[in-house]
Amino acid sequence: MKLTLEQAQKAVEAGVKKSKELDLKMNVAVVDAGANLMAFGRMEGAWLGSVDIAIKKAKTARYFDMESGEIGKLSQPGQPLFNIEHSNNGLITFPGGVLIEDKNGEIIGAIGVSGSSVENDHEVATAAKKSIS
Amino acid sequence: MKLTLEQAQKAVEAGVKKSKELDLKMNVAVVDAGANLMAFGRMEGAWLGSVDIAIKKAKTARYFDMESGEIGKLSQPGQPLFNIEHSNNGLITFPGGVLIEDKNGEIIGAIGVSGSSVENDHEVATAAKKSIS
Amino acid sequence: MKLTLEQAQKAVEAGVKKSKELDLKMNVAVVDAGANLMAFGRMEGAWLGSVDIAIKKAKTARYFDMESGEIGKLSQPGQPLFNIEHSNNGLITFPGGVLIEDKNGEIIGAIGVSGSSVENDHEVATAAKKSIS
Amino acid sequence: MKLTLEQAQKAVEAGVKKSKELDLKMNVAVVDAGANLMAFGRMEGAWLGSVDIAIKKAKTARYFDMESGEIGKLSQPGQPLFNIEHSNNGLITFPGGVLIEDKNGEIIGAIGVSGSSVENDHEVATAAKKSIS
Repeated sequence: MKLTLEQAQKAVEAGVKKSKELDLKMNVAVVDAGANLMAFGRMEGAWLGSVDIAIKKAKTARYFDMESGEIGKLSQPGQPLFNIEHSNNGLITFPGGVLIEDKNGEIIGAIGVSGSSVENDHEVATAAKKSIS
Repeated sequence: MKLTLEQAQKAVEAGVKKSKELDLKMNVAVVDAGANLMAFGRMEGAWLGSVDIAIKKAKTARYFDMESGEIGKLSQPGQPLFNIEHSNNGLITFPGGVLIEDKNGEIIGAIGVSGSSVENDHEVATAAKKSIS
Repeated sequence: MKLTLEQAQKAVEAGVKKSKELDLKMNVAVVDAGANLMAFGRMEGAWLGSVDIAIKKAKTARYFDMESGEIGKLSQPGQPLFNIEHSNNGLITFPGGVLIEDKNGEIIGAIGVSGSSVENDHEVATAAKKSIS
Repeated sequence: MKLTLEQAQKAVEAGVKKSKELDLKMNVAVVDAGANLMAFGRMEGAWLGSVDIAIKKAKTARYFDMESGEIGKLSQPGQPLFNIEHSNNGLITFPGGVLIEDKNGEIIGAIGVSGSSVENDHEVATAAKKSIS
């Protein structure tokens, strides 16, 4: 199954809704199975630097089929993937990037959220993900 | 007045609607007054290379406060802005990038569309623009 | 249907074989439906600058679902897509990039060849393509 | 002695074979003495982000004539080559990049493997290397 624009937009909407509940200003990006941008939304007043970070978190999750924060654990000094962030024109490896799976468990895309603490970013990304599973 | 996420998303929706009427598969990008991405949508099956082009058209329009195609006339061989595309990490100067103005005529953002002929790209961008003016 | 590594390698082999027949030294790149590199081969003594060009030709073809040379006609001065090459981290729009389709006519990847004249590049790319259709 | 395309392809094949034995999905890249890509293969379903990493591991090994993981020990915080990854458009300095030597011990290329744990990456790279020594 392929991710549809409708699903991708629904995920952005769910992320924005969750952000409002938490009184946050977020950037929400959705990529498809090919790691190409499918939908994006930035709330008024959200950090400008987070446009790129949200997109990179989504791409990073899909590039390695795991949540961005999991890669970040492995890329610390002394860990196996130290400085992996230098690949693929820049990865973002802290939390906020999560995977989208279809009903059969196949990965069909990923979501990246940036604009607050990594805990909040991850919470909003998870809410966005739930809207389409 | 500042561009809102709601307006930006409305523009994406209007672009998608127009594309469906014309039986096209488009990428639609909206940037704010700061030329930063605000909303984006890619229709299923749209050209992969048009993600970047749609975003660059919107940015190009706002960078110089004129429609992308206008800059393209000036960037031809022998013209005053020959090869201006080399600046700003890459401009796209053919039609499909249009400006968004508020009620007072102030420029508050821009729209970029890519996925078909430049005439179709421009038509869809114009439809997207009309949705929020 | 998805492009397999076996098919991609078969295409590289066919390109190399054709190049030997024509007494040429080529780079042959194959990307999948997501425009990601799947297989690559460079013949001994082939131009070093052609590694990147072969890969970019394959990506360019898949980015816009047409042969790279077709885009090149449209990107000339005065033509609709002038300087489109500035998008997507650099396109190559002269001949040598061709599409791979499955039995149902769906595009599943692309081939890029570089190392000689554009006529020879295109001929070798076409031979590579035929090996898997 | 110079690395031949035949040798490079043999290395890719050996890497793919080893990966299948270990039930892994890998990207295998081979560069020549000039650190230019010579052959490449990506198994179906391998991580998309590993295309670039496999190539960068091979280049990194040849750039400094040591296995990529050796450089990674020196690039840690407080070590002599801290953050050397910023050079050469991005290095990858964890294991998976190994050297290819001819019968006289002269370095004629390098192999980079990415797609699993660094231990698995290194094991597959070593198997690929053995196929041509």
